[in-house]
Amino acid sequence: MQYELYYWSGLQGRGEFVRLAFEEAGVDYADIARRPDGTEAMMRLMRRKTAPPAPFAPPFLKAGDLIIPHVANILMYLGPRVGLAPQDEGGRHVLHGLQLTITDFVAEVHDTHHPISGELYFEDQKEAAKARAAAFLANRVPKFFGYFERALQQNAHGPAHILGPTLTYVDLSLFQLMEGMRYAFPRAMRGYAAAYPALARLHDAVRRRPRLAAYLKSERRIAFNESGIFRHYPELDHAP
Amino acid sequence: MQYELYYWSGLQGRGEFVRLAFEEAGVDYADIARRPDGTEAMMRLMRRKTAPPAPFAPPFLKAGDLIIPHVANILMYLGPRVGLAPQDEGGRHVLHGLQLTITDFVAEVHDTHHPISGELYFEDQKEAAKARAAAFLANRVPKFFGYFERALQQNAHGPAHILGPTLTYVDLSLFQLMEGMRYAFPRAMRGYAAAYPALARLHDAVRRRPRLAAYLKSERRIAFNESGIFRHYPELDHAP
Repeated sequence: MQYELYYWSGLQGRGEFVRLAFEEAGVDYADIARRPDGTEAMMRLMRRKTAPPAPFAPPFLKAGDLIIPHVANILMYLGPRVGLAPQDEGGRHVLHGLQLTITDFVAEVHDTHHPISGELYFEDQKEAAKARAAAFLANRVPKFFGYFERALQQNAHGPAHILGPTLTYVDLSLFQLMEGMRYAFPRAMRGYAAAYPALARLHDAVRRRPRLAAYLKSERRIAFNESGIFRHYPELDHAP
Repeated sequence: MQYELYYWSGLQGRGEFVRLAFEEAGVDYADIARRPDGTEAMMRLMRRKTAPPAPFAPPFLKAGDLIIPHVANILMYLGPRVGLAPQDEGGRHVLHGLQLTITDFVAEVHDTHHPISGELYFEDQKEAAKARAAAFLANRVPKFFGYFERALQQNAHGPAHILGPTLTYVDLSLFQLMEGMRYAFPRAMRGYAAAYPALARLHDAVRRRPRLAAYLKSERRIAFNESGIFRHYPELDHAP
């Protein structure tokens, strides 16, 4: 059975957190968005009228007959199967809790450029976006980054990983979060390595892992762009 | 071992989704927020510097030594233990996916009254709140409610439950969502039963379950108020 990832084409978006896990694990997966008829295949599955319910939104994973929506849910399912999560139930729920905190952060990043409505253009909600992005950079980023930095520093196995002695999917997601924040908010992120040294080291270490490095250089890695979660709008970016 | 639920005192908030599962299952649990020193006990656990990391935010569950944060994560852990979720792994992930869609909806409800920043008062972001609430009621509520209505209608076991033949924690969360929306947006919700009949029937059926009915009448059920997720600000509420 080959895992199938369904997502929008042309952007990293939320799907990228799942791609990173597949790429690092060296697991063969079908990235349906890359196929010419990928979006159509995805929409067909989403319009399906059989039980259990079709997903509310992409991304979702198809593993045989099982369809699993939501990034954190997908990673919780895949993690122990591909060597990126503890095997014990308690550890899986603790790791999942960390991933759900990343999910919340990602939603807040998205809302910096769409604070009023996903149906409106950025240009039509730019004033609210400026206010939301300023509050996000001033209050929320330090709160989330401070939390993850402490979690790394307090790991009894050392600050190279967020949980336990080995790499997990949360470490990969933290890499993506740093990468995305540096793309979207280069001014605000200047100097972040001094403030969050363990996060910055994790970011560098993941980037240098052989499979990840190969993936990041490949054409499979879509460049950041202004269709994704992390968008670079200079008017939203401030020095800290 | 008695389960311990940690949350802010004086509001339903996100903790209520967990309380409903405990109450319906008839499981003895300690609601730490009800104790005079409850908030202090919660903050002590959150400031803990040992691995695994303390939760980013309440609510969280303590089950023996295990601490599980995030509502959907807690419910995924509890569900099969208290008879409110399938036992098989695939079914658990499908149910969890539905709960995570509810999580997203809850975050959007919250942002109708706080679209710019949780650090600002409602009064200081009221214009943005009006715009966001209008878009939420016009676009997002029909999208989410339509999704859950279809999921109920398409259940092969009948529209009384969202997944499979019996009550799950997602049915309880959908009840809470209807209840909260009727409190926060009474004008917008007028006539919702005609548009979403299966959701409305589920709402009524859950309210009449003996244990839930007893809970809702008890002093353990905190009334909705303007500290929670679902807040009634008349200026945000519009007829559909």
